[in-house]
Amino acid sequence: MGKDGGEGTGVTPAAEFPALGPAEVDALRQVGERWRDARRDRPDRTDDLPVDPTLGRYRRRPAPSRFGRLAPIEMFRPGEPDELVATEPANRPASRPGRAVGRLRRAVLGPPLTSAAVLYERMRKLVALPVLSSDLLSSVAYGPEAMLTVLLLAGDAALGLSLPLAALLVLLMVAVGLSYRQTIPAYPHGAGSYLVAGDNLGAGAGLTAAAGLMIDYVLTVAVSVAAGVRAVTSALPGLTGLTVPLGVLVIVALLAGNLRGVRTAGNLFVLPTYAFVVALLAVLAAGFLQAAGRGFAALPPPQVPAAEGLGLLLVLRAFSSGAVSMTGIEAVSNAVPAFRPPEWRNARTTLSWMVAMLVLLFAGVVALIHLDGVVPAPGETLLSQLARMSFPTGPWYALVQAATALILLLAANTAFNDFPRLLFFMARAGHAPRRFLHMGDRLAFSNGLVALSVAAAFVLVVFRGRTESLIPLYAVGVFLAFTLSQAGMVVHWHRRRGPRRRRRLALNAVGATLSGLVLVTAAIAKFTEGAWAVVVAVPLLVLLCHRVRRHYRRLDRALSLGPPSAPSAPPVAGALAPEGEEVPQQVRHLVVVPVARLNRASLRALAYAASLGQPTLAVHLAPEEAPASRFREEWEAWGDHLRLETIVSPYRAVIGPLAHYLEALHASRPDLVLTVIVPEVVLRRRWHRPLHSRTEHRLRAALRTLPGVVVTSVPVHLPE
Amino acid sequence: MGKDGGEGTGVTPAAEFPALGPAEVDALRQVGERWRDARRDRPDRTDDLPVDPTLGRYRRRPAPSRFGRLAPIEMFRPGEPDELVATEPANRPASRPGRAVGRLRRAVLGPPLTSAAVLYERMRKLVALPVLSSDLLSSVAYGPEAMLTVLLLAGDAALGLSLPLAALLVLLMVAVGLSYRQTIPAYPHGAGSYLVAGDNLGAGAGLTAAAGLMIDYVLTVAVSVAAGVRAVTSALPGLTGLTVPLGVLVIVALLAGNLRGVRTAGNLFVLPTYAFVVALLAVLAAGFLQAAGRGFAALPPPQVPAAEGLGLLLVLRAFSSGAVSMTGIEAVSNAVPAFRPPEWRNARTTLSWMVAMLVLLFAGVVALIHLDGVVPAPGETLLSQLARMSFPTGPWYALVQAATALILLLAANTAFNDFPRLLFFMARAGHAPRRFLHMGDRLAFSNGLVALSVAAAFVLVVFRGRTESLIPLYAVGVFLAFTLSQAGMVVHWHRRRGPRRRRRLALNAVGATLSGLVLVTAAIAKFTEGAWAVVVAVPLLVLLCHRVRRHYRRLDRALSLGPPSAPSAPPVAGALAPEGEEVPQQVRHLVVVPVARLNRASLRALAYAASLGQPTLAVHLAPEEAPASRFREEWEAWGDHLRLETIVSPYRAVIGPLAHYLEALHASRPDLVLTVIVPEVVLRRRWHRPLHSRTEHRLRAALRTLPGVVVTSVPVHLPE
Repeated sequence: MGKDGGEGTGVTPAAEFPALGPAEVDALRQVGERWRDARRDRPDRTDDLPVDPTLGRYRRRPAPSRFGRLAPIEMFRPGEPDELVATEPANRPASRPGRAVGRLRRAVLGPPLTSAAVLYERMRKLVALPVLSSDLLSSVAYGPEAMLTVLLLAGDAALGLSLPLAALLVLLMVAVGLSYRQTIPAYPHGAGSYLVAGDNLGAGAGLTAAAGLMIDYVLTVAVSVAAGVRAVTSALPGLTGLTVPLGVLVIVALLAGNLRGVRTAGNLFVLPTYAFVVALLAVLAAGFLQAAGRGFAALPPPQVPAAEGLGLLLVLRAFSSGAVSMTGIEAVSNAVPAFRPPEWRNARTTLSWMVAMLVLLFAGVVALIHLDGVVPAPGETLLSQLARMSFPTGPWYALVQAATALILLLAANTAFNDFPRLLFFMARAGHAPRRFLHMGDRLAFSNGLVALSVAAAFVLVVFRGRTESLIPLYAVGVFLAFTLSQAGMVVHWHRRRGPRRRRRLALNAVGATLSGLVLVTAAIAKFTEGAWAVVVAVPLLVLLCHRVRRHYRRLDRALSLGPPSAPSAPPVAGALAPEGEEVPQQVRHLVVVPVARLNRASLRALAYAASLGQPTLAVHLAPEEAPASRFREEWEAWGDHLRLETIVSPYRAVIGPLAHYLEALHASRPDLVLTVIVPEVVLRRRWHRPLHSRTEHRLRAALRTLPGVVVTSVPVHLPE
Repeated sequence: MGKDGGEGTGVTPAAEFPALGPAEVDALRQVGERWRDARRDRPDRTDDLPVDPTLGRYRRRPAPSRFGRLAPIEMFRPGEPDELVATEPANRPASRPGRAVGRLRRAVLGPPLTSAAVLYERMRKLVALPVLSSDLLSSVAYGPEAMLTVLLLAGDAALGLSLPLAALLVLLMVAVGLSYRQTIPAYPHGAGSYLVAGDNLGAGAGLTAAAGLMIDYVLTVAVSVAAGVRAVTSALPGLTGLTVPLGVLVIVALLAGNLRGVRTAGNLFVLPTYAFVVALLAVLAAGFLQAAGRGFAALPPPQVPAAEGLGLLLVLRAFSSGAVSMTGIEAVSNAVPAFRPPEWRNARTTLSWMVAMLVLLFAGVVALIHLDGVVPAPGETLLSQLARMSFPTGPWYALVQAATALILLLAANTAFNDFPRLLFFMARAGHAPRRFLHMGDRLAFSNGLVALSVAAAFVLVVFRGRTESLIPLYAVGVFLAFTLSQAGMVVHWHRRRGPRRRRRLALNAVGATLSGLVLVTAAIAKFTEGAWAVVVAVPLLVLLCHRVRRHYRRLDRALSLGPPSAPSAPPVAGALAPEGEEVPQQVRHLVVVPVARLNRASLRALAYAASLGQPTLAVHLAPEEAPASRFREEWEAWGDHLRLETIVSPYRAVIGPLAHYLEALHASRPDLVLTVIVPEVVLRRRWHRPLHSRTEHRLRAALRTLPGVVVTSVPVHLPE
């Protein structure tokens, strides 16, 4: 079992909040001892708070309900002893626009789900099949056509190669399918290429696989949506100009569906996927019946002159174009934790069904194309030609086309299932931003879903929704992941003992070799057509993930608790404060209040500062001598209650001299904690912001690098 | 003398820091008394600070100088007693990229100037003339052409109207010039239309004039730069595709020149303006000599068929197009405070010279056009045709063209002089953001200069640098300002007694009437060509300025000190805190520390909180029961030194429940000041930001509306 997969079923909301390790708890005890010692010296521990923190029976002021009556809102209910449980209204934002957004959100996405509901959001097999296979099966709609289009460049004589190439592809499908079947029980908590390759071949291989998959998922969404929209605009040519906006709209709809949660999203996808399978099977059955009627004699294809010679490169290009039909086969292995228990067995069964269906449909389509003698034409898809030959009249043809368009639009959904889950696993290992660990209020990985949608919409807009420019970028990423995942399984079987080890190893080795061949073929044959972008992007993504992880590692090392004598932090400026500061008695304060003008706001900040009972210093900056003396007079009129230091800034800058002055104070006594207290006028309206210099923000930014300088903002509200 | 002009010479850096009024000082004394009473009860006033706030002989750590030696940097030097003076290095930012930007800035803009240098940055008359007149005089390069182009629509027969129309325009120039001559001594501290109209006709009229002028200044920059770039691209057609980038580049260069300060900017403009005047006078002299040779007989213009009938509207359009030659005449009156003393006399003399030169050049050009019989042609400007006829051979023609191109490019500079000054006066009255009061480190109004550049570049890009689309928007704004300013002067003379009152009133009345006629003519005749945009924009700008002023008024009313019993602030939530809080003894504290995980950062925040010696409460949020109990165990391992409250947030939100919990605490004891202490991990690199959830920022935003909730961020620095 992989080390990453070892934490329960993995995908839970609690993954965001890991527990402390035993060494950290030990260190915590030691720090606690020193607090106890220190606090024994000063026995004024104020445990009696001025309020009841359990809120007693707090209810918010009654608010008008939907029916105009006043009803109290319970924000918190008591849980276990010493514990409050936030109710659903406590999640709603307090501001008026925030509440409006919240209501819209609830209407579109449904009410929030509690963490306890996570198990109910899993998928049954009959739901999982359409959810996870729409990508794979829909590729049958364009894979064979992509292969034949390349072959046709060498003239109609080359079309005969389609049958042996298809046989090779079926072999590849079966090999890869069997290979993944073995992976699922070995990694029951998530058998994605990232985990398998990372576990067996090292983090670099895992990240390479992940980078390939991430690119592929984004392209899946962009290509599927573009192809689906194109199917619609072929039927309604008036909409052609709206290709890109329509595509973005579909992405937004998919995003909304998936934000509602896995179960709801699944329900949306059951019907179209099954409809497509049934429709395609009907086309095939009718076609083969007709062919049987003429003794399975292949109709001759139309004469097409050769544009290129029939070289090896052309055949390889045709093969790798046909391999596009396999994209999406890895969906199940990534989504194992989304199945109902027993997860791995349900997932494996689903995978077998899927691959069987893929082989049946793919082989059938290629064979029927050969028998019917149809060739790719610019105006009509091959599938449409087949359907028209099988059902020359009646509504059947239209139904087949509608099912195809629908499944293409929905194929993007597979990526919506897998991409956020991949990012979750990456984030758990520190390779991706931690926010991808967070489950939104509908228990979906909202951040991952949004990231995928934004990236796909960006690609769609950049390529203006042209499928043919996107296809060459495809396949490289996914076969990279296939190859690494199965190579990882080879190492896996090599390392462990067990029954049928050799047979399993051999099976995965075959899968790895075949996938690797397709990878190299695709990368070389399509390099100049766009695959170079993927070849460049994968290492960049890997580098980025490495950098992300390095940042988190450093952060964790700096923040994690160690024994008090640990010399992990250098003692000079810029580092964590000296250990001594972790005990309250050793903190020495100096409170500094910058005052620009004596008014209610600054007097409030001064009162707050003085009320802390620590040594306090007020600082005033003036552009010239005259206003400086005038301010000192005003200060004395007030009563000179606090020590005032005036700084003349003849160059009229405020932030620079103030920051340097505080730095100088800090340098003269580095053990002091400087608390800078700034009044902050709270602006109700966003457009009022440019009317204020927002000194507090700029000062905070300037003081950011100084250790031991704390910035406190005292809000001042305007009556309105 | 106007009430706005009453504060010294007006334009000083100290305008940003107004003094307190006598009523406020009284209120301050009363508040101070209450502090004294309160502090008498608790005699622990800690006047002895742990550091010397005057910094003693503080010097920053020696830093390597340019020659590799170590030199101490003196950031502050002692000033008067109790006062420090920031030296120039204290303005420099502390961060490394900030310092690099600072060095670049110094190299481009020069070293900073102290506030005391403000007088030396004034202009002599011989410098002021080219600086302020480049806009006005350069309009001769396109004004007559604009008029003739309109006339030519009615065929060559209509060209005869050019002489009477020009005579009318000369009359207008003289009237407006005399009118402004009277305004300058009446408003010696700034005689701009905004001040004069506002002072005599009310704030609305002042703002209307200001809005007209602001639009006009932006258009001046855009049109002049576009025309100048066009003169360049006519000579070098290869650059035509780069019109917009070249224009933006010119705007950036003008911005940099003006940010260097008034004096430096002036030096740049002396030569081109005088060169243009000399060149144009030479063309006129040569042309009239030739005409004298043939007895001043006008050459017949080429036959041009009439495209439109010669109606009144056409004549009006021609007249208002010719009036474009007068834009820029108001420059001197706005810039009075930029002259050396005696400001008003120097300004008035400069204005007289300018108007005289304008009349001479304008009348001469129109007359010579008539004598030479030239007509506007698409390929060549009229001025170029005149120059070619006067100097058929030799380098003279090229010199005239070069001088014309240069002055057109520099004409934009007038707007760079006036726009920031207009915004300064508006900001002083509260009609514009206060940042326009700030003088940058070169004593220029940096914010106004940047605002003008951005607006002009935006207009230039939107109109793709096409002069002909911009011209119709012109003139409406400026004649609006002329009319209001002179109508204001009429009221001014009407109100006061003095010698020659009647004559002055009559003169201003004539100016106002003529300007008003041009305004109405321009607005009607060019309405559909683009003037509608100005007609729409002026009231919008006036509304915006009114809103800005209302905001500042409310702010001042809320913040200004009143007698303690003043009921200005309502006592309920959302308002300023109860008066009692202004005295430190009445502040009751509760310190709240949200803790997500026990690590160095949160322990530091806890230590800081405990060291304040106030009642302290820690709050933890967990998504489920299990992690909540785990956290409580960790808390007890630490020693349970502070009261902990756990909140289970089953919907996984953090900010919402926390904010509502704090709101509930606040509601149960509204007199408490809640100080929320949040550790803030300081990120060195900007790209690390997306890796963190920045809870502190979001919490601050959520708590913004609650009165009496203070947010303190304790910085945690990562070693690196």
